[in-house]
Amino acid sequence: MNVPLVVTHFLDRAVSLYGDKTGVICDGKEITYKQLYERANQLSHGLKDLGVTKGDRVAYLAPNTLEMLEGFYGIFQLGAVMVPLNIRLKPDDYLFILNHSESKVLFVDQELYHLIVPIKNQLQTVETIIVHYKDEDTNEIAYDEWLAQYPTTAFERPDIDENDICSLLYTSGTTGKPKGVMLTHRNNYLHALVAMHHLRVSDRDNYLHVLPMFHVNGWGAPFYYTANGATQICLRKAVPEWIFNCIEKYKVSVMHMAPTVLNLLLQYYEQYKPSISHPVRVVIAGSAPPPAFVTRVEKELGWEFIQVYGMTESSPLSTVSTIRSHLGDLPLHEQYRMKAKAGHAMIGCEVKVVNEQGEEVPHDGKTIGELIVRSNGVMKGYWKNPEATMETIRNGWLYTGDMATVDQYGNIDIVDRKKDIIISGGENISSIEVEGVLYDHPAVLEAAVIAVPHKKWGETPHAFVVTRPGHHVTEQELIAFSREKLAHFKAITGVTFVDELPKTASGKIQKVHLRKEYWNTLGKAGRYVN
Amino acid sequence: MNVPLVVTHFLDRAVSLYGDKTGVICDGKEITYKQLYERANQLSHGLKDLGVTKGDRVAYLAPNTLEMLEGFYGIFQLGAVMVPLNIRLKPDDYLFILNHSESKVLFVDQELYHLIVPIKNQLQTVETIIVHYKDEDTNEIAYDEWLAQYPTTAFERPDIDENDICSLLYTSGTTGKPKGVMLTHRNNYLHALVAMHHLRVSDRDNYLHVLPMFHVNGWGAPFYYTANGATQICLRKAVPEWIFNCIEKYKVSVMHMAPTVLNLLLQYYEQYKPSISHPVRVVIAGSAPPPAFVTRVEKELGWEFIQVYGMTESSPLSTVSTIRSHLGDLPLHEQYRMKAKAGHAMIGCEVKVVNEQGEEVPHDGKTIGELIVRSNGVMKGYWKNPEATMETIRNGWLYTGDMATVDQYGNIDIVDRKKDIIISGGENISSIEVEGVLYDHPAVLEAAVIAVPHKKWGETPHAFVVTRPGHHVTEQELIAFSREKLAHFKAITGVTFVDELPKTASGKIQKVHLRKEYWNTLGKAGRYVN
Ligand SMILES: Nc1ncnc2c1ncn2[C@@H]1O[C@H](COP(=O)(O)O)[C@@H](O)[C@H]1O
Repeated sequence: MNVPLVVTHFLDRAVSLYGDKTGVICDGKEITYKQLYERANQLSHGLKDLGVTKGDRVAYLAPNTLEMLEGFYGIFQLGAVMVPLNIRLKPDDYLFILNHSESKVLFVDQELYHLIVPIKNQLQTVETIIVHYKDEDTNEIAYDEWLAQYPTTAFERPDIDENDICSLLYTSGTTGKPKGVMLTHRNNYLHALVAMHHLRVSDRDNYLHVLPMFHVNGWGAPFYYTANGATQICLRKAVPEWIFNCIEKYKVSVMHMAPTVLNLLLQYYEQYKPSISHPVRVVIAGSAPPPAFVTRVEKELGWEFIQVYGMTESSPLSTVSTIRSHLGDLPLHEQYRMKAKAGHAMIGCEVKVVNEQGEEVPHDGKTIGELIVRSNGVMKGYWKNPEATMETIRNGWLYTGDMATVDQYGNIDIVDRKKDIIISGGENISSIEVEGVLYDHPAVLEAAVIAVPHKKWGETPHAFVVTRPGHHVTEQELIAFSREKLAHFKAITGVTFVDELPKTASGKIQKVHLRKEYWNTLGKAGRYVN
Repeated sequence: MNVPLVVTHFLDRAVSLYGDKTGVICDGKEITYKQLYERANQLSHGLKDLGVTKGDRVAYLAPNTLEMLEGFYGIFQLGAVMVPLNIRLKPDDYLFILNHSESKVLFVDQELYHLIVPIKNQLQTVETIIVHYKDEDTNEIAYDEWLAQYPTTAFERPDIDENDICSLLYTSGTTGKPKGVMLTHRNNYLHALVAMHHLRVSDRDNYLHVLPMFHVNGWGAPFYYTANGATQICLRKAVPEWIFNCIEKYKVSVMHMAPTVLNLLLQYYEQYKPSISHPVRVVIAGSAPPPAFVTRVEKELGWEFIQVYGMTESSPLSTVSTIRSHLGDLPLHEQYRMKAKAGHAMIGCEVKVVNEQGEEVPHDGKTIGELIVRSNGVMKGYWKNPEATMETIRNGWLYTGDMATVDQYGNIDIVDRKKDIIISGGENISSIEVEGVLYDHPAVLEAAVIAVPHKKWGETPHAFVVTRPGHHVTEQELIAFSREKLAHFKAITGVTFVDELPKTASGKIQKVHLRKEYWNTLGKAGRYVN
């Protein structure tokens, strides 16, 4: 018997087995899974009323709220497609995405509505805008009142095939226009089954939505925490104080976040030493964390650190860094180092690091190649962009654009985005490796290393550094520090001290912005891209 | 991207991530996952040499051995179909199954070879017989020498579709001929993903193959313990002393078994009090365990008791009895009672208990209906038997023939096989409930309750009892005991004391054999069936 792998099953299960349990907590309000289901039903009925049918796109511009979470299932019940928008973009980006995706309805949080105002008149397909938490001055449909009109009764779902698209996620490209990643029900469903197993998700979990849901559906969180009947706590902003308060108040057991957000938590912890007595897992991805983070999380905070690797194009997770059973006897510092890597393939995923000829690189922890992935999490393709799809998926493998090494145990270590690698005198330098060393310096709070032009070597590493409050360090000291710890050709040759590093909404440092001023005048176009 | 859900992936992952780890232990011999892979390759090359191609059936008659385990993957690599034979059948049964499945090759363990001798000449399709652990007197191909001829190098696999059949499992019917359950790669693959999650399988596990692999592939064990890189210990026979020795020696962390085997372990434990200091999970299915077992396992042995429910036709598992998060506050005795039930649907499974009109029965813990299941674990159908398939799978649901109630929390309790229910004066009596009460009596070691004819009531409950060594009890005492604890119409009206109860190889009590003598002369045909 083939039962289509359709993600609405996850909510159905939660309703039937955890109906009266608190499913979602948002702004102090608690609702059960049954109530969540009823709200999703209202939403589906409402969308149908607005003329939305199977395959239509519905966009969301919202932080992590109940309204966003119910949006997923309200849309999926119709067989329609969720288009979650990154909340950190500019009005013009929204204009492009909304028109390109041909979204019919846009839900927007009052907080973000001002980003839509300037482009409203140029929207070609959006027929209805509905505002969450609408205030009086906004002249649009208010969500709560609109929703209240519709029945909470079961919505009659159309037949949905597992290969139908259920989410369309735009990835930010800094060159060219954003691309829409098409994920099918099957992609998200199988990703969920695999991720829940490796992350050991259960109904005992209280999951805090720190990672934005618009970012690859919070790495699939609304699927697998729901399927398991965990309690989900929504958080509008990743403010360290709020996060610690939630952890304590709701006995949060698991969170997903980027290393930069984790860094904020570590800083906060250092300063205020909040005491959390129950076990917590933090699942980290988005960029490679400095190895020092692992030790701090596990030893100081006493939390379990789980590194995973993924990208929007693969639902996203493909690898996990949990120490495998037969490596548990390695010295602790080696284990910590290992945990900071991207790790090894999850079940159902195949990963390889290949050279330009497509051959696997030796497992020597040194040779750099491109990471390629093959799994049922990999997207159907880019929306209305077959060329880009063909460039990215070749011979049945997804080319990630991430450069990596593989150690003797088969652990993958992401050394750089293809475009971030520094090529100095013909040698490849991993900017991540250099940053890892800088993070070991007590005065360094954040560091980003980029390639800058160099007469003799072509390129050379240059650091952007945010210093830790109350600490002082000079450029010369940091250069000397890096020369002490690294092969000399890898050492930084200059430092720019800044107050802040440019970041994406999910917390990734945007090196392209840092590189720009160095390469601008030299016209080296490759250095503009992300 | 759609990557076919093909079970060979599980071995591939183990080889790539756990290649040098001990994968299988059999008769004290330890082999790594890489060696297992090499042996499977040899087997695939050898089978190809024998003319086996995609879709062909290959039969195994063997206890739990390394040779059996590698058989799965050796066959799957060819796209061929594994037909594991129940080792407790009679030569005529094997004749039927081998001819009906049109198996081309038969692997048989020396221990069981005598069962094939009488039928050898009547085998219509079997071209080759190969004997594991062959002794000198047996005039057949010896496995080891045959295998050794073939290269250990990778076998070039044909394209395999996820809907291709990978195993064909004959269920023992006592009326009519055994039926061949066709399970596809997709069935087994998705069942594995779901089961590994709910059973919390990991690479830290040392799994003891107590449950025979021929029994629905040991409930899928060769798939998900392999995928996770666990160590698998093979055991030829479920002898309590051997089991305890293995648990101690190999730090076994998890086992699957039927309640009757668990009963043997409990008896052994009571007598010898072996001390096991590490955590152990026992996964129980095959029939409903007496509630008293849960307490004994968790309190006395200190092991975790996990009840699951399944049947060959659904790969097999569909429900699990783990206490859900919001029920953890119930009194311990209620939790123990709950753990003895079949429980609630696993992720990806839908289960319902329906009356004759197909309507769900109320969740009152009383109303009895038939359990029906819908999931990707459900078989493709019965081999060459579309009528039986159509009878069993109706409107997209598998009719299990198991009668059950649902309590207020949605937990399913199997009260009987449809054919085992006792109908007395128009009331349904669950033979399992009555047995549960008898098990509470200190003198009762094993009990089976069946319907026997009764002038006034039509049928009435009658018990077959094995007494505990050193204990004595009379028929009158047991009748009185059951009247004390049960509504009178449910109480037993007679007892037959026996030394042993007839059981299937997987440990199920065969009530049909008990019923036979009572119904024989009355010609009530329905009472013959299983
Ligand atoms: N564990 C990780 N280590 C290093 N880089 C990562 C990791 N996880 C994700 N990334 C980066 O994030 C990219 C995916 O970004 P996104 O599609 O926005 O989720 C990947 O291509 C990597 O460059």
